[in-house]
Amino acid sequence: MIHFDTDYMEGAHPEVIRRLTETNLEQTAGYGNDPYTARAKELIRKACGQPGAAVHFLVGGTQTNATVIDGLLAHHEGVLAAETAHINVHESGAIEATGHKVITLPQHEGKLRANEVKAYITDFYRDETYEHMVAPGMVYISHPTEYGTLYTLDELEDLSRVCREAHIPLYMDGARLGYGLASPGTNVTLKDIARLCDAFYIGGTKVGTLFGEAVVAPDPKRLPHFFPLIKQHGALLAKGRLLGIQFETLFTDGLYERLGAHAVRLALKLKQAFVQKGYRLHLDSPTNQQFVCLPNETIDRLAQEATFELWGPRGETETVVRFVTSWATREADVDTLISLL
Amino acid sequence: MIHFDTDYMEGAHPEVIRRLTETNLEQTAGYGNDPYTARAKELIRKACGQPGAAVHFLVGGTQTNATVIDGLLAHHEGVLAAETAHINVHESGAIEATGHKVITLPQHEGKLRANEVKAYITDFYRDETYEHMVAPGMVYISHPTEYGTLYTLDELEDLSRVCREAHIPLYMDGARLGYGLASPGTNVTLKDIARLCDAFYIGGTKVGTLFGEAVVAPDPKRLPHFFPLIKQHGALLAKGRLLGIQFETLFTDGLYERLGAHAVRLALKLKQAFVQKGYRLHLDSPTNQQFVCLPNETIDRLAQEATFELWGPRGETETVVRFVTSWATREADVDTLISLL
Amino acid sequence: MIHFDTDYMEGAHPEVIRRLTETNLEQTAGYGNDPYTARAKELIRKACGQPGAAVHFLVGGTQTNATVIDGLLAHHEGVLAAETAHINVHESGAIEATGHKVITLPQHEGKLRANEVKAYITDFYRDETYEHMVAPGMVYISHPTEYGTLYTLDELEDLSRVCREAHIPLYMDGARLGYGLASPGTNVTLKDIARLCDAFYIGGTKVGTLFGEAVVAPDPKRLPHFFPLIKQHGALLAKGRLLGIQFETLFTDGLYERLGAHAVRLALKLKQAFVQKGYRLHLDSPTNQQFVCLPNETIDRLAQEATFELWGPRGETETVVRFVTSWATREADVDTLISLL
Amino acid sequence: MIHFDTDYMEGAHPEVIRRLTETNLEQTAGYGNDPYTARAKELIRKACGQPGAAVHFLVGGTQTNATVIDGLLAHHEGVLAAETAHINVHESGAIEATGHKVITLPQHEGKLRANEVKAYITDFYRDETYEHMVAPGMVYISHPTEYGTLYTLDELEDLSRVCREAHIPLYMDGARLGYGLASPGTNVTLKDIARLCDAFYIGGTKVGTLFGEAVVAPDPKRLPHFFPLIKQHGALLAKGRLLGIQFETLFTDGLYERLGAHAVRLALKLKQAFVQKGYRLHLDSPTNQQFVCLPNETIDRLAQEATFELWGPRGETETVVRFVTSWATREADVDTLISLL
Repeated sequence: MIHFDTDYMEGAHPEVIRRLTETNLEQTAGYGNDPYTARAKELIRKACGQPGAAVHFLVGGTQTNATVIDGLLAHHEGVLAAETAHINVHESGAIEATGHKVITLPQHEGKLRANEVKAYITDFYRDETYEHMVAPGMVYISHPTEYGTLYTLDELEDLSRVCREAHIPLYMDGARLGYGLASPGTNVTLKDIARLCDAFYIGGTKVGTLFGEAVVAPDPKRLPHFFPLIKQHGALLAKGRLLGIQFETLFTDGLYERLGAHAVRLALKLKQAFVQKGYRLHLDSPTNQQFVCLPNETIDRLAQEATFELWGPRGETETVVRFVTSWATREADVDTLISLL
Repeated sequence: MIHFDTDYMEGAHPEVIRRLTETNLEQTAGYGNDPYTARAKELIRKACGQPGAAVHFLVGGTQTNATVIDGLLAHHEGVLAAETAHINVHESGAIEATGHKVITLPQHEGKLRANEVKAYITDFYRDETYEHMVAPGMVYISHPTEYGTLYTLDELEDLSRVCREAHIPLYMDGARLGYGLASPGTNVTLKDIARLCDAFYIGGTKVGTLFGEAVVAPDPKRLPHFFPLIKQHGALLAKGRLLGIQFETLFTDGLYERLGAHAVRLALKLKQAFVQKGYRLHLDSPTNQQFVCLPNETIDRLAQEATFELWGPRGETETVVRFVTSWATREADVDTLISLL
Repeated sequence: MIHFDTDYMEGAHPEVIRRLTETNLEQTAGYGNDPYTARAKELIRKACGQPGAAVHFLVGGTQTNATVIDGLLAHHEGVLAAETAHINVHESGAIEATGHKVITLPQHEGKLRANEVKAYITDFYRDETYEHMVAPGMVYISHPTEYGTLYTLDELEDLSRVCREAHIPLYMDGARLGYGLASPGTNVTLKDIARLCDAFYIGGTKVGTLFGEAVVAPDPKRLPHFFPLIKQHGALLAKGRLLGIQFETLFTDGLYERLGAHAVRLALKLKQAFVQKGYRLHLDSPTNQQFVCLPNETIDRLAQEATFELWGPRGETETVVRFVTSWATREADVDTLISLL
Repeated sequence: MIHFDTDYMEGAHPEVIRRLTETNLEQTAGYGNDPYTARAKELIRKACGQPGAAVHFLVGGTQTNATVIDGLLAHHEGVLAAETAHINVHESGAIEATGHKVITLPQHEGKLRANEVKAYITDFYRDETYEHMVAPGMVYISHPTEYGTLYTLDELEDLSRVCREAHIPLYMDGARLGYGLASPGTNVTLKDIARLCDAFYIGGTKVGTLFGEAVVAPDPKRLPHFFPLIKQHGALLAKGRLLGIQFETLFTDGLYERLGAHAVRLALKLKQAFVQKGYRLHLDSPTNQQFVCLPNETIDRLAQEATFELWGPRGETETVVRFVTSWATREADVDTLISLL
């Protein structure tokens, strides 16, 4: 059986494991007050081109989103997001549990449009009853999106400008950021993101570490008193150095880029095979998640030898299916899958 | 200037004021432990045909919705509501502030459809990832809706059945319930509502009292420990008897019905005038709120002599306008408005 | 039967009722956007000597405390309060329900001591683990306290200085403020309070109105976006003018002062009688709540003709009892009570 | 430099690392739906003597406490805990952030007393105003406590009985449970705990794993819908098998017991040395945390060669100091420390 369900089916890149093993019995202070964490932060600041940025390490994506969003919003504010946003759909209400509304806007292949964000904010303050409504206090985007799609630099510049004109922060969920940065077609760099977003996170869980997400706030004043907030949200790892060691490894010798490139190359190879064999893409994803419409009989046949996810309910004759590659995907498995198509 | 902005522009019905005045210097225990409150509860139980019902008095609508919904939901659950629901749009995030998501469904003239509620719940539990999503823990409807429309008895029966099959409560926001019950076309009675809903409130603020909403739970076990929850939500009035006195008055000698009938009669007179004069209704409301499309020049002309609300942003040539009557509306004002059309 | 249980057993001062009645059928905009509310705010600003102050009207004490405290605190902060503070004991966890810890300090006849507040804050930041603890983000005091006692001007100056040095706001719960200001021994004026506190409320519910509390923030920037927060907390009254009319009446022709003085005069008359008849005071309250130790047989005898509250559990031979007067207490009832002692 | 600051200064026991490494590139489903997690749960059920127990794996202690306590409490309830409880002092308000009050009782060397818990509950419901107060909805204890002390079996039986008579759950924070079970003097076994508590967690972070806590609910109905609650609290690890693998290792071949015994043996050796050299114990801890009063000059001298924590502020001439051993402590380091005393 070969697996294309998700990008978190394996542990960590062997180099990460090697570093965790070789430092295992060292003794350091807890909660991130260790030299590994300090070095990892420095490497990330450098990669982002933001020497003054605050960098915080948390364990997982949902807790990162809830903690950052809670930190960015005032009590009366909510977060604008696409209706397909992970925070709106698949986090069990973690944002609302912190008291904040997720205000949804239409999604376009998983993306928000700057003009629609702008129109929402403008209309909001034009409404005479706006003080009875939840104020749009920030914008959440994911990059890549839940559909694997990417913002172009122009789109990101536009969103950033709209947010800055409205004096609200732009936050990017980068759970799969490595796969976005490595996409051959993208013109968005990590430095662009750091320049255009007020906060974002660089996902480790899906891109090479056992777990861990690195929150970056280019202007640290955007996330004041963030340490106690991390603790309050139960997101503070006692052995914080485990996060430092893993991210130090990712950001050494270009490992993060290489892991991203590997997964994307295999995903695009798979996409090409689908197209060549005449299957219809559900949408054109340039990253490690591929969505394709398959006849139900093809699905049943493939399921004998491979695992993958149905995307939504099974249709009458065909169904959208998601195939995911990762840093750990073996090319042989991709080739096998292609041979089965 | 004549006013049709809202149904809470005046104080209370004179009989309510008279009773408040004549009991003013009596001394009673606080927090609803007084004979007026006891009698009011008994009158409401009787009107609902539910001798065993729990009745609780709160001050305003938003706090009532937040307290009841918080009381009905488990931590991991959210409330299903139409996208136009008051709790979704105009309560400043009060529901989310208690930690719960408002899960929106399409609205049909302000109403939910039972089959869409059923489909949502069915699809939810068919989704393999449902434990990562907010479980639909109850259904919220308003009757009349925010658009003045009413559920038919069949529609309400259907919604109730869907909820009971799914083992989740059906809750009705009755801020304007008196205007719904008094609508000539309705076949839904207060007893029907008490039979079909698991909790609902009978609104006083908009139908004759200074303030106050009466929450009814036909089966008291549905809202266990509700008294401390009312207190925790800041919704417990120290001089609770003020609520008792007002609702006792409303439910004596059919006052509540008469107040409702008055407002609806005038609203329908106004609607008929709009139609006769050739204006297009935005939708066909059988209650005290009327929505009509008016040319902008007509709006500007009327605004010289009357106040009312634009419903949404002003259009290029015409705009939807809301006119509201209440228990206190003077027929002469309606006639004046009609003469201006 | 004569009653000394609480200071919210009656309705409102007759002048308040008269004004509510005479304005009852006027039509005004809702939510406090009416001329009565505007005038009441102006009168309060003037009484406080703070022409630039923000004034907000809410319905009850618990909701006022929860809304203001939520508005003053950052997510990671808690509120310092005496262990006997109303917010710590008798609000059903309303503060915690907004996500904030009540951090308790020892009480001294219901009061906090400035030096103990200062020591707490100093020790807090000396603790190496302070970022794992709830930061003291504000100080809550009540004046009069839950024991009827009052801060002296020196004590209040000290608390204010400690707070300002620590850059945290001082908030006063003035549920019974009228009875504090009217105490013959006090040297604290409303202007002092407005000068020394960052937020406070002037209680109406217990001092002459049907309900209502007036929040004052001398510097409006201390409570930014407070209107949507009031709405979110379910504390926004639809017919906001009811609050405006009541407070306008209280602050016209010195009514608030007269109501306070009446209750305090009768309470002190009662206290003097207790002392003269040889009963031991539990503590020496200069306001409208009197606490006295009575032999159980005396309690049983009095209970035949008067109602009052046991303060804590009944003792073996004697018990602390609370007697409360109010703006509405009849001198004849006090004389009757005295004759029974 | 030798280190006795905390029990989370190293990574994981080498056997844990070995298992993580050797399974690293296997592909499994996420979120705990993997065979390692299933086996770990089975091993824990067996160790607890509770074949029907629910077992859930979370990442860290604060998130575990917040999630379990939120899951056990109704909205109007709070958690009873010793004033020194970790949830009251060192979790940045994580419990209050979920809306629940921590109700504190006196601590006796870190422990609650059953009779004091009982008295609190009895007095609570005797208070006529109890519905205005936060209901005691559960009891939190830690074992070992924050002071390293242990409940005796009698004490635990008494607490359990008090809770069961009051129909509220007893929850044990077992962050250092392994060190408690391994203490030579204890008569409390894991099976006793599972029999007497309604929920508890077996801590991994401080006893041999990189991270991870195993929540056990002997009666699964006590924590209904706990999976979405874990997700909502941001406590669900994507690669859940990492927790399964680690706990499977701990509960294989008695590793957990051996790790506990190692740390306790060295801690008691250290305690004996303190006593023999004439130092005064702050209290008599039978587990891996030792608290001793040291003259300040001794502290300064030791600090040249060892790290440890001052317990509270430095005194004028002597200060309480904490020394902690762990599964990873080298006997040579303990001997060195003893030689320095």
